[in-house]
Amino acid sequence: MKDSIFVKTGYDPETVVQDGNRFLLANGYLGIRGTVEEADSSALPAVNLAGLYDRYENRWREPVNAPMGLFAKLILNDRPMAIGETEPASHTLSIDFRQGVFSRETDFGAVVLYSERIASLMAPHLLAAKLSLHFRERGEAVLTTGISTDLWDLNGPHLNDYRYRTGETLLCESVTGELRIPVAVAQTASADFPAVETFRVTDKGVFRDLRFSVSEGETVTVSIFSAVYTGQDVPSPAESAAVLCNRAKASGYSLCLQAHTGAWDEVWKRCGVDLDGDASAALALTASQYYLNSIAPRHAGNLSIPARGLSGQTYKGAVFWDSEIFLFPMFVYTQPEIAASLLRYRIETLPGARKKAREYGYRGAFYAWESQEGGAEGCTDFNVVDVFTHRPVRTYFRDKQIHISGDIAYALWEYWRITGDPALLLEGGAEVILECARFYLSRANLHLDSDLIDFADVIGPDEYHERVTNNAFTNRIIRYCWENALRLPEIFSEEPERFSKLLDRLDYHADWSRLKNAVERLSNPRVRNGVTEQFQGYFDLEDASLETVRTRLCDPREYWGGDHGVAGSTQIIKQADVITLIALFPEDFTDEAVAANWAYYEPRTEHGSSLSACMYALTACRIGRQDLAWKHFVNTASIDLNGGGKQWAGEIYIGGTHPAANGGAWMIAALGFAGLSVRDGTIVLRPHLPKEITKLCFPIELRGRRFQVTVTHETHSIEEI
Amino acid sequence: MKDSIFVKTGYDPETVVQDGNRFLLANGYLGIRGTVEEADSSALPAVNLAGLYDRYENRWREPVNAPMGLFAKLILNDRPMAIGETEPASHTLSIDFRQGVFSRETDFGAVVLYSERIASLMAPHLLAAKLSLHFRERGEAVLTTGISTDLWDLNGPHLNDYRYRTGETLLCESVTGELRIPVAVAQTASADFPAVETFRVTDKGVFRDLRFSVSEGETVTVSIFSAVYTGQDVPSPAESAAVLCNRAKASGYSLCLQAHTGAWDEVWKRCGVDLDGDASAALALTASQYYLNSIAPRHAGNLSIPARGLSGQTYKGAVFWDSEIFLFPMFVYTQPEIAASLLRYRIETLPGARKKAREYGYRGAFYAWESQEGGAEGCTDFNVVDVFTHRPVRTYFRDKQIHISGDIAYALWEYWRITGDPALLLEGGAEVILECARFYLSRANLHLDSDLIDFADVIGPDEYHERVTNNAFTNRIIRYCWENALRLPEIFSEEPERFSKLLDRLDYHADWSRLKNAVERLSNPRVRNGVTEQFQGYFDLEDASLETVRTRLCDPREYWGGDHGVAGSTQIIKQADVITLIALFPEDFTDEAVAANWAYYEPRTEHGSSLSACMYALTACRIGRQDLAWKHFVNTASIDLNGGGKQWAGEIYIGGTHPAANGGAWMIAALGFAGLSVRDGTIVLRPHLPKEITKLCFPIELRGRRFQVTVTHETHSIEEI
Repeated sequence: MKDSIFVKTGYDPETVVQDGNRFLLANGYLGIRGTVEEADSSALPAVNLAGLYDRYENRWREPVNAPMGLFAKLILNDRPMAIGETEPASHTLSIDFRQGVFSRETDFGAVVLYSERIASLMAPHLLAAKLSLHFRERGEAVLTTGISTDLWDLNGPHLNDYRYRTGETLLCESVTGELRIPVAVAQTASADFPAVETFRVTDKGVFRDLRFSVSEGETVTVSIFSAVYTGQDVPSPAESAAVLCNRAKASGYSLCLQAHTGAWDEVWKRCGVDLDGDASAALALTASQYYLNSIAPRHAGNLSIPARGLSGQTYKGAVFWDSEIFLFPMFVYTQPEIAASLLRYRIETLPGARKKAREYGYRGAFYAWESQEGGAEGCTDFNVVDVFTHRPVRTYFRDKQIHISGDIAYALWEYWRITGDPALLLEGGAEVILECARFYLSRANLHLDSDLIDFADVIGPDEYHERVTNNAFTNRIIRYCWENALRLPEIFSEEPERFSKLLDRLDYHADWSRLKNAVERLSNPRVRNGVTEQFQGYFDLEDASLETVRTRLCDPREYWGGDHGVAGSTQIIKQADVITLIALFPEDFTDEAVAANWAYYEPRTEHGSSLSACMYALTACRIGRQDLAWKHFVNTASIDLNGGGKQWAGEIYIGGTHPAANGGAWMIAALGFAGLSVRDGTIVLRPHLPKEITKLCFPIELRGRRFQVTVTHETHSIEEI
Repeated sequence: MKDSIFVKTGYDPETVVQDGNRFLLANGYLGIRGTVEEADSSALPAVNLAGLYDRYENRWREPVNAPMGLFAKLILNDRPMAIGETEPASHTLSIDFRQGVFSRETDFGAVVLYSERIASLMAPHLLAAKLSLHFRERGEAVLTTGISTDLWDLNGPHLNDYRYRTGETLLCESVTGELRIPVAVAQTASADFPAVETFRVTDKGVFRDLRFSVSEGETVTVSIFSAVYTGQDVPSPAESAAVLCNRAKASGYSLCLQAHTGAWDEVWKRCGVDLDGDASAALALTASQYYLNSIAPRHAGNLSIPARGLSGQTYKGAVFWDSEIFLFPMFVYTQPEIAASLLRYRIETLPGARKKAREYGYRGAFYAWESQEGGAEGCTDFNVVDVFTHRPVRTYFRDKQIHISGDIAYALWEYWRITGDPALLLEGGAEVILECARFYLSRANLHLDSDLIDFADVIGPDEYHERVTNNAFTNRIIRYCWENALRLPEIFSEEPERFSKLLDRLDYHADWSRLKNAVERLSNPRVRNGVTEQFQGYFDLEDASLETVRTRLCDPREYWGGDHGVAGSTQIIKQADVITLIALFPEDFTDEAVAANWAYYEPRTEHGSSLSACMYALTACRIGRQDLAWKHFVNTASIDLNGGGKQWAGEIYIGGTHPAANGGAWMIAALGFAGLSVRDGTIVLRPHLPKEITKLCFPIELRGRRFQVTVTHETHSIEEI
């Protein structure tokens, strides 16, 4: 692990929102955006909670942001020392990705404010911060700390019935609007200087004011601890929060920090990739791994990861196919218990998937496109707002992106294939695969003329083309689901009657007997000059260049897809589609076919999704074109550091961190550059190291053993550690 | 036949475009818009030709407007006596629907200009006009007549390489751009006063100037004759045009007029409806019958009628399902040879329908949604222009409105059922039905779960809801097509080997054996509380009121349908859909079911198509609710007189006359109010006369015999005449 600190100097109001993502701290339970202590809601601060959702009025359901327990603001001689109110002489934000520590230093002239903070990886309900104030001016200071309820919400407010308690421990209790789930935040502070302490409750929260006199050159320090619990975690959230706060205060900030960085050390030991040769790429990859690891659900064995992590309410805090296809690989190769957690979330939310299938008149399991708690579908029928009419537009992600069920079945099978551990399949995973297979059976149509099964009216990974027929990716993932359903008896080979009972319980025998025939009749895509057609009729669409299509935009924020969008009737695609198919099913394709598809689709891809570049990079490596992969690797790894990615889809804000790209960066490094795969339980390396990298070194964990993989241009090795 | 003259007084520039439609003259071969003689292209004049199409650059193919041979303009003492240049003291347009004569009287103070004109029903290539000029001021006059090439085109220009000849007969020759088809216009004039005649060729045509001195109180008259021929009509269009012109001049205007009105007398004798009790409704119905009869292809046995008749280039001059479902009934009951012409057009354009089916990967006959010559598809994939971005929007009329083939098969069967004449079926019609049935077989999908055939991804009559599954109307018309294909052996019962040979020639035996099974498995619609669901999932759409939906419009011209339109995700429909199904298949529904469907769908119908109201009126009569029918009858019958109907779809001009509504008005009167039907060759009347009508009287022709139908509130009768 090389350089792991990212620093940004200077204050620019334009980048405050992006900085909130870049300097995010998270620990799987919560994420705290990288905003300064004194920020009000205009800076989009948030303590974003994993897995707690709320609907305000008839708006989108979204995750809840808790009140901010690390609020702090200094007034010196009646002048606020606060970003946004006083121009700083200098201002620096930094984050240490290796340690998971955010710090901030602002020189207001009269005072230099230094703070650092953690979202404890050891005690995930705990936030802790240390503030140091170095005074260059004597006089009277008031340092306010407390719990701010001046929250940023996309579709809020979500918290009601605020109740406050003051005293050594501040307490803010509230309940969510929809399900009346309690949310409690406690705060306590410890100052190393004498001060007069008073308390205030305002319409923006509960606060403690420390009044003290300062002399020139004096430095004072205060530690702040805050804890968050909800009714989903414990029976008495307020009590638990207060207890944790006070315990942390008793331990002190240093000990909290030490426990936290120790936990991060362990994470890096298990998955950290050392990349030599390009320092900025190395830092980007470290950042990328940090962002993904920081939101891994380590505190629970049955949670998954939202598409924008814990960086806010974007994408409704929902779990997408990103989890199975883009995040799962790093975890399954380095921290399989987290991979298992992602899948256990799907196993436990099977009832939600069954419910959705029934809703559409199908059987089996149709998983939510945007899954919230219990598998509830967060995706609406109107997922884009038209920039011209400001009206919602009917989109079809919810009802037509049926590959989601197959993606989950794919990952369940991959978990078994890579780890060799059948436990997940035996304990619910097999049922998920069977129910996904049944869903596809119930949606299958036999085209009478060809005697082939078509999957019409679907959306593949490329969302710009809605309601297409026989999307190559979708059909392949369905075939795999059906094939693996048929292979399940192997998994149960030691207890065949258990499988038979499962079929009994699911009343599955009739469907079972249909699977083989279905596999045989499933349509295959058209291949032209070695290029797989993305869906039926794709090759007949207008073959306009990306630049041409871009010039047709009337508004930079307008949505490219669907019947009104500039891309919908052309061959321009949003993201890797056939290329994702190749990445997931590499053995279906010869190297020549991969090269032909890459050459065809890459120039036609807008890469309007963070899920795109990594698939192109992976497949480029496969055919020895790591030169082509490099650009996509750098883009993928640095998306969050650069604050890139699309910020808007129509009028919907979609900014935040990009877990799928984070996972993708690891995939490119490990599965692409190092060429790592597991075949029949054996680790295989087929390195394609780009010239920019001199050495790549990373740990993996396979079947209870740990290995160090090392790849240079000359050699490569796998050593058990 | 009562009052048959419609008069409009006063000059209003705002209504010039609508007046062009209202005062249209036509004779099946051409239509001449009701503009004044001196009009330039800004008034949208046109001599619109039936069945001659051209594409300019990459724009829509549309029918060609010929140069205007009845151009005339007077200059008196150097002052133009022309609408638009000189304010008239009074201005009156009138049309005699019974005689097919347009006249115009304009008082410019110094001169009163009177003209009348015909588009000869006897000699359909001939236009004739008589101008009378009554001078109130003495001086020098110049009357210019000639052939104006200052044409109005929607997507032109279409004519090239103009060549002119001057002399007693003016000649204007040109060729179309795409197919280089010659278009020739001749003109000659005959004045009853001495004048100095000179000729001019300008960039706007070829003209003859008559210079003469006038005294106060003097009246002079000039007759003008113009003829139009194209290379589709005769080998030498210019010669034919000149010959016809000169023959007409030799006969004189009066004789031309007499022959013309005689032909119209015969038309009215065969189909004119006398309506007593409401004079304005009676006039509207007469107008409506006039508009439809004036565009009937009497000069050819194998032409159909465009959706906006011959009133311009709107809707690409193309033939829609309107012909079979809305125009066909009046003709089959009154002038069956014209009904046969409409169908013969479909029989002869079967190759075009086969070509379209192949284009989409199907077999059989998929007729053009907007059929041009030879059955060429005039409909594009982008049939609406978005009013906000000015970009074309992908619509699905062309590829998904598959009921068109079934509509044609339906009318073919109706022709036989009503007339008892198998000739059309024997001579090509059976082949059309078989090929339409085959098309549906090749598009059918068996839903494996239900073992039922679904027709997914279609558009029904209600175009606002795109890409729906199992549209009730579409499935029913497919079922009828399949059933009638199976009944064809009855038609060939006297020559069974002929049918067998037909199956041989079409290589149809395998498909034939699939038809019965297909009929049995075809999905039926869901019925809830007696209401047939328009398509799968319709009842689940937002049930917003028409008024609510209308308030969501951001621009009055925006398109309501599709994913962006205000109606697409609601239950608001553009036009009768289930109600059209009921009108076409009355025996499928009990009176209670008709009432339930009417009550449900009518308030949810925008009537945004002229095809809507008549279906509601027809079905209201069926259940004895002629009170509800009356409003729709009046709207339907008076749509062209009022200049109503939508003028815009997005940014596309769609104004013109409404043949389908014209046909619909007859259907309401005859099939609704009089309750006319034919069952097993017998005429049946089930009158439901509205209180506004005291007596309804009309002729029909059935199986070579003519009858007069008379209906009052007390009695009804059918008398052979």
